[in-house]
Amino acid sequence: MKLSCEKASLLSAISVTSRATASKSTIPSLEGILIEAYEELLLSGYNLRTGIRSKVEAEITETGSIVLNSRLFSEIVRSFPDDVITITSNEKYIVTLECGMSKFEIIGSSAEDYPELPSIDGRDFFTTKQSTLKSMISQTIFAISDNESRPIHTGSLFELEDKTLTIVSVDGYRLALRKEEIESSEMENGSFVVPGSALLEIEKIMSDTDKLVKITLGTKHISFVVDDTELISRRLEGEFLNYRQAIPQNSKYIIEVNKRDIISSVERVSLIISDKLKSPVRCLFDNGVLYLSTVTTLGKANDECMVDGDGEKLEIGFNNKYLLDALKAAPSDSLKLMLTTGISPCIIVPSDDTDKFIYMVLPVRLKAGEF
Amino acid sequence: MKLSCEKASLLSAISVTSRATASKSTIPSLEGILIEAYEELLLSGYNLRTGIRSKVEAEITETGSIVLNSRLFSEIVRSFPDDVITITSNEKYIVTLECGMSKFEIIGSSAEDYPELPSIDGRDFFTTKQSTLKSMISQTIFAISDNESRPIHTGSLFELEDKTLTIVSVDGYRLALRKEEIESSEMENGSFVVPGSALLEIEKIMSDTDKLVKITLGTKHISFVVDDTELISRRLEGEFLNYRQAIPQNSKYIIEVNKRDIISSVERVSLIISDKLKSPVRCLFDNGVLYLSTVTTLGKANDECMVDGDGEKLEIGFNNKYLLDALKAAPSDSLKLMLTTGISPCIIVPSDDTDKFIYMVLPVRLKAGEF
Repeated sequence: MKLSCEKASLLSAISVTSRATASKSTIPSLEGILIEAYEELLLSGYNLRTGIRSKVEAEITETGSIVLNSRLFSEIVRSFPDDVITITSNEKYIVTLECGMSKFEIIGSSAEDYPELPSIDGRDFFTTKQSTLKSMISQTIFAISDNESRPIHTGSLFELEDKTLTIVSVDGYRLALRKEEIESSEMENGSFVVPGSALLEIEKIMSDTDKLVKITLGTKHISFVVDDTELISRRLEGEFLNYRQAIPQNSKYIIEVNKRDIISSVERVSLIISDKLKSPVRCLFDNGVLYLSTVTTLGKANDECMVDGDGEKLEIGFNNKYLLDALKAAPSDSLKLMLTTGISPCIIVPSDDTDKFIYMVLPVRLKAGEF
Repeated sequence: MKLSCEKASLLSAISVTSRATASKSTIPSLEGILIEAYEELLLSGYNLRTGIRSKVEAEITETGSIVLNSRLFSEIVRSFPDDVITITSNEKYIVTLECGMSKFEIIGSSAEDYPELPSIDGRDFFTTKQSTLKSMISQTIFAISDNESRPIHTGSLFELEDKTLTIVSVDGYRLALRKEEIESSEMENGSFVVPGSALLEIEKIMSDTDKLVKITLGTKHISFVVDDTELISRRLEGEFLNYRQAIPQNSKYIIEVNKRDIISSVERVSLIISDKLKSPVRCLFDNGVLYLSTVTTLGKANDECMVDGDGEKLEIGFNNKYLLDALKAAPSDSLKLMLTTGISPCIIVPSDDTDKFIYMVLPVRLKAGEF
């Protein structure tokens, strides 16, 4: 194998594909990046769950393929000056990397031991703006379950209906939903579930740009194409929660809050809560004021937050982390909290656009005690 | 105890004094910050080696003292809005912190269990600009020994002679020296050794400003006063290396190098060196070129760096970390490497000011082998 390419393009392909290399695997070559130089130069990382393949503009003078340790490959290329890099490998898997006055000779491993990335057999696809999908994922991913006993909920539901995409994440305690129109669709209405680990990567690969991402559905896999990069992941199989039934349609109290103010207050009273010292955040909604408090063995914390609306002294307890996740993800400076009783779910929506983002959090039962 | 003060001043005093609180101690109160509110408000951290005491402008309405957990105290104060904070404590060591709408009640501990910080008995002192001492420490601290078998070399020598301060650090393999004029002196010529752990803190406490730092020498301790903060450390006792004898006066070859270029080259060939895969950086100084190379089980790395001067093919090996530390600390874009043989020390000085900064590194013996 012999090829040459620009440092910048190579480095960006290494950065993105190395996100899918296995950190520790019984198949050692999965810890490396697969370099394939045939008609075009392709770099791949694959941890048997998620695969990322990236195309690099290169001049290939001798075809071939090799696997290189991801960390060392990345560090060497990063250390080179901004110039053309030449990579050669011989039949003994010795790889030479040269740039300017610098030359490295390192040992690679055979590409034959590298498992083949799955290919997508489907023709159903749709496209959406990268910036849109990126924000939709980041605003729902935190509510994905990490409990492997319900594997289907360790991913997000993607539901396509009349050119509208809805993404839903749930664990046992909360639900996050985002809805947006997509750009174009060559697929029927329907739904599929994407693993959280793949969403984490695809969210990072996409940029905050109007350029499109193409999502293609196969029978067992799904592919996201972003510029010169393709991410392939298996789909999760199983029965996802019927989210339409789970979200209550009516609430007794609608309280409007300033996002920054309520986050500050919840964060403050959370200071005496820790992994070891769990305690709910007790919220009392009175006329125009939200009173917050927590009690742990570290002490007591009290806070107040001006709100718009009267909760008629409704008292409700929340897990501080679940509440903060939602407040932080909500895409608006002003939020509506929709409440009915102290033991029914709380709905959080942006004040200005109550349809695009819906968050539901279940309350934590409060012990009677001093406020 | 009852007092009130501005958030900003309190937070900055907490940040600085918490640097000297013990992270884990058999005396639990040493893990906290001592708050003393008498004629003035003083915060102290003390790990029995280094003590830091900081004065905070405050209105004291009831005198008293208490010890508060450093992390919690800091997080609570940081979470408050920019406003006046009121702190009260009662005889049960319950401390109330209030600011705006927020109120915390946490448990402190008795100030009586807190060991007294050492006081400086000496009257000998000198002053220098904070920016000067800060740079002198940062440019020598890395060469302090971490080998406790020669305790005296786990600190830096401060030598005062005719209004000039010289700071010297040495471990078994290298030496770093910085020399500057000081502002004023009320002490005799002489020398003392400051522990590295105290230098690390005092360097961070000082700002890059012309404001002065006052250094006062006691018989067993030394004090640095920076603005409203005092750092007190014990002095190290013992015989420091006679550095004047250790630095060779003449060198056969003087090679001028661009600091950035040589750092890039050394960093690049260091990529295949690790804690597990130690190997010297082999340097060959020829006419106008420095050839660098390393070999480990990971592979081979070769690099070239344009230099000014002829080393007549002098070959010398260095520990890559020791070489890089010096190159990075040297306060000039152009450096002189002064060499004699492959087994004699290399001296590194700034090209423009060969007196203020001297670094000496011992070579590593090279095995015969391919270059």
